[in-house]
Amino acid sequence: MGILRGNAVIGQSGGPTAAINATLSGVIKGAFEARDVIGTVYGMRNGIEGFLAENLINLTERFANGDDLRILEQTPAAALGSCRKKMKSPDVEPETYERLIEIFKKYDIRYFFYIGGNDSMDTVSKLSQFAANHDYEMRVIGVPKTIDNDLMVTDHTPGFGSAAKYVATTVKEVIRDTSVYTLKAVTIIEIMGRDAGWLTTAAALPVISGGKGPDLIYLPECTFDPEKFISDIVELQKDHPAIVVAISEGIRFADGRYVGEGMSARKVDAFGHVALSGAGKVLEELVKEKIGCKARSIELNLPQRAAAHLASLTDITESVGVGRHAVECAIDGESGVMMTIDRVSDNPYKVSFGSSDISGIANGVKGVPAEYINAECNGITEAGINYLRPLIIGELDTVYEEGMPKHIVL
Amino acid sequence: MGILRGNAVIGQSGGPTAAINATLSGVIKGAFEARDVIGTVYGMRNGIEGFLAENLINLTERFANGDDLRILEQTPAAALGSCRKKMKSPDVEPETYERLIEIFKKYDIRYFFYIGGNDSMDTVSKLSQFAANHDYEMRVIGVPKTIDNDLMVTDHTPGFGSAAKYVATTVKEVIRDTSVYTLKAVTIIEIMGRDAGWLTTAAALPVISGGKGPDLIYLPECTFDPEKFISDIVELQKDHPAIVVAISEGIRFADGRYVGEGMSARKVDAFGHVALSGAGKVLEELVKEKIGCKARSIELNLPQRAAAHLASLTDITESVGVGRHAVECAIDGESGVMMTIDRVSDNPYKVSFGSSDISGIANGVKGVPAEYINAECNGITEAGINYLRPLIIGELDTVYEEGMPKHIVL
Repeated sequence: MGILRGNAVIGQSGGPTAAINATLSGVIKGAFEARDVIGTVYGMRNGIEGFLAENLINLTERFANGDDLRILEQTPAAALGSCRKKMKSPDVEPETYERLIEIFKKYDIRYFFYIGGNDSMDTVSKLSQFAANHDYEMRVIGVPKTIDNDLMVTDHTPGFGSAAKYVATTVKEVIRDTSVYTLKAVTIIEIMGRDAGWLTTAAALPVISGGKGPDLIYLPECTFDPEKFISDIVELQKDHPAIVVAISEGIRFADGRYVGEGMSARKVDAFGHVALSGAGKVLEELVKEKIGCKARSIELNLPQRAAAHLASLTDITESVGVGRHAVECAIDGESGVMMTIDRVSDNPYKVSFGSSDISGIANGVKGVPAEYINAECNGITEAGINYLRPLIIGELDTVYEEGMPKHIVL
Repeated sequence: MGILRGNAVIGQSGGPTAAINATLSGVIKGAFEARDVIGTVYGMRNGIEGFLAENLINLTERFANGDDLRILEQTPAAALGSCRKKMKSPDVEPETYERLIEIFKKYDIRYFFYIGGNDSMDTVSKLSQFAANHDYEMRVIGVPKTIDNDLMVTDHTPGFGSAAKYVATTVKEVIRDTSVYTLKAVTIIEIMGRDAGWLTTAAALPVISGGKGPDLIYLPECTFDPEKFISDIVELQKDHPAIVVAISEGIRFADGRYVGEGMSARKVDAFGHVALSGAGKVLEELVKEKIGCKARSIELNLPQRAAAHLASLTDITESVGVGRHAVECAIDGESGVMMTIDRVSDNPYKVSFGSSDISGIANGVKGVPAEYINAECNGITEAGINYLRPLIIGELDTVYEEGMPKHIVL
C-alpha cells in the first residue's frame, strides 16, 4: 500500500470528558509530525453534524503556536463542540454519505479521526465501510473517550482515569467532612453510570490513601435491596456514627425499576413523565424514614466529567498518546478501527496502544466484572482496586489564570 | 502586665472548611515558636463539648515532626472534630463555666484558642468574660472561619477564598461542559449561602479568566422574581443556546418564602415537614414548564467547603498567618477578641492581621453590599469582582498519595 497524501479532519462527539481535548491535541501533534503526508488539519465543529454543514476550523493555523496545545490538554469538554447524531446506515440514508464524500473531495480530506463513545464508533464503522465501497480512498479511525469506561476491547477508556480521580478525591474529602460530628448521619454520594458502575468503583480508592473509603458501595451490576441497605447501615452505626454510601445513578430494584424512580409505584408529574428524583435523593428519604437520623445526598453531577483541574496525569498522557497513535495507524493504512489501550503489566503499570476492528464494538457494553465486586454486593474487592489504582496517578502542571485553570475556546 | 506562662488548648467548631486546619496549624506553629511561654499544646476533640469531657489530644507530641503540619494544612474539615454547641450564658448555666475553669486549672491551661464561626465567637465572648470575673487569669481568643464570609469587622474570613476558588473553577468548567451542544439548555448551579450571597458572587469570576461567566447570578440580598428570570433567559437564548445560571440556596420570593420551598403553597411531606426540594431543582422545573427546553440543576453541595485539593494559596497562607497572630496577641495580653484580616491595599493586594473586641461581633451578619450587585439584581459588578479577585489567587503544592491528596487524621 502506497502512502496516502491529503488533508485530515478531526471531530469530537458524545458527552464531554476532562481528557477529550488531550486526545484532540494528540491527533493534532501526530498530524503535525507527519507533515510530509498530512497537509492541513481541519476540525469539524459539533461533530458530524457540523461537518455536513461545512462548519470547519483550520487547526493547522490555530495551533501554529504549539504552546496552545498544552492549554488545550487542560481544557475540559469538547473544544470543537459535540453532537449526539446517530448516523443511519447508508442503505437508509445514502444522501448523507454521498454528501460526506463530496465534502471530503472538496477539502481533499483523506484522514478522518472521530473521538467519541459508542455512537461515534458506530459512525466510524459505517463511514469506513461506505468509503471502501465507493472508491474513495481514505482512512477512518475512531478514538474512544468516555468517563463510563464501558467500551469493549480496550482495557480502559481515555477520560475515565480523570473522572475516577475526581470521584476518589471528592469522596475522600467528603468522608473527612462527614467525620467531624458525633451525631448519627448518613451521606449518600450519587455517581454517574446508568448501566455500568465503573466510575462508582473509584469511590473505593480512598481506602488505599489514608485507610477509609465509603462504608457501602452499590453498582448497577447488582440488584439493590433496600432492606439490606437499611440493616447494613444500622449495623455499621453501632461502630461509628457517620456513614458514607456511594451509589451509581443506575442502581435498580429487583423488579428492574431504577431506584431513582422512587420506592413505590411510578409517580407521574403534571406532564405525564415518570418523576425521577435521583437515586441519592430516594435513599436519603428512605434513611430518614426508616432510621430517623440525619441524611444527606450529594449528586456529583457534571463536575465528574468536567473537572479538568483534577485530571489524572496518567489519563491525559495516555489520551494524548492514543490520539498520536491513531495518526500513525492511519498513515500505516489502517481504517475502520478503534484505538485501544492495552495493559501490558500492572506492577509496574505499563500500557501499549493498539487498534481493533471497529465493527461490533459499538454494540457491546463492558460492565464491571464480578471479581471486582464483593460477595455481599456492597463493596469493591482488592482485584478491583488493583485495576483502578494506576489510572488516577499523577497530576498535571496546570496553568492558572486569575486563580482559575486556563482554558482554550476554539 | 507580666508574661503569663502555662499551657494552651485549641478547639474547632461549626461547619468544616478547607482552611480550618491551616488555622489550627498556624496556632500550633505560633505556640511552638513561643515555647518559653507556652508549654504543652492540647487539642480538644469535638470542640467545647469534647473539652467538657476532657477529651484532649496532646498536639505538642503529635506534631513533634513538623512535616505533618504541612499535611494538616492541606487536610479539609476540622481535624480535631467539631460541635454545634451553643453555650448558654453563665447566669443560666454557671456549672458549665465552673467545670471549664476546673479543667483549665487541672491542665494549667492559660491560653484558649477557638476557631469557628458566629456561635464559636459567642462562646469565646462569654468564656472570656466569665474568666475575667472569676479571678482565673487566662487569654481567650477567637479565630474566625467560615466559607460564608458573613462575619462582621474582618475584610473576609479564612476558608472563604478556597471555597470561592472551588466555586469559580467549577462554574468555569461547567460553562465549558454546557457549551458543546447546539441545543437550547439551561443549567442552574446552586451554591451555599442561606442569608448572605458571598460564595455565589464567586461564580462571576470566570469572566476575568477566559471571558465568560454565568449569564445570570441571583443572591439572597435581592428578591427573586420568577417572571423576570424566565423572560431574561428567553431573551438570552436569542443570542446563544446554552444558558448558565448561578443561584444562592437562600434566594427568596417577594413574599419571603425560600425558592427552595417551591413555586406554590407549601408542600408538606408524609411527616408534616415542609418539603424543601432545593432552589436549583425548583427553578429547573420552572424552566421546563415555562420554556420547555432542556434544564438541569447542579447543587455544589459539600465539596464547596471540603475541596481542599483546590484550596487558594492566598487563603491558606492567611489562615495559617491569622492563627499564628492569635498566639502573638494572646501572649501580648489580649483576650476576648476575634482575629481579623484587614485589607491594606487592593493592588498590590496586601493584608495585615488585627484583632477586634469580640462582644457584639457574633450577633451581626455581613451581607454582600449593594455596590457589588448590578442594578438588575442578576449579576456582579466590577467592584465586586475587584474585591474577590485576590482571594482565590495561588495554588498549594499539594502532596498526593496514590493519586489523591494526602490527609491527616488525628
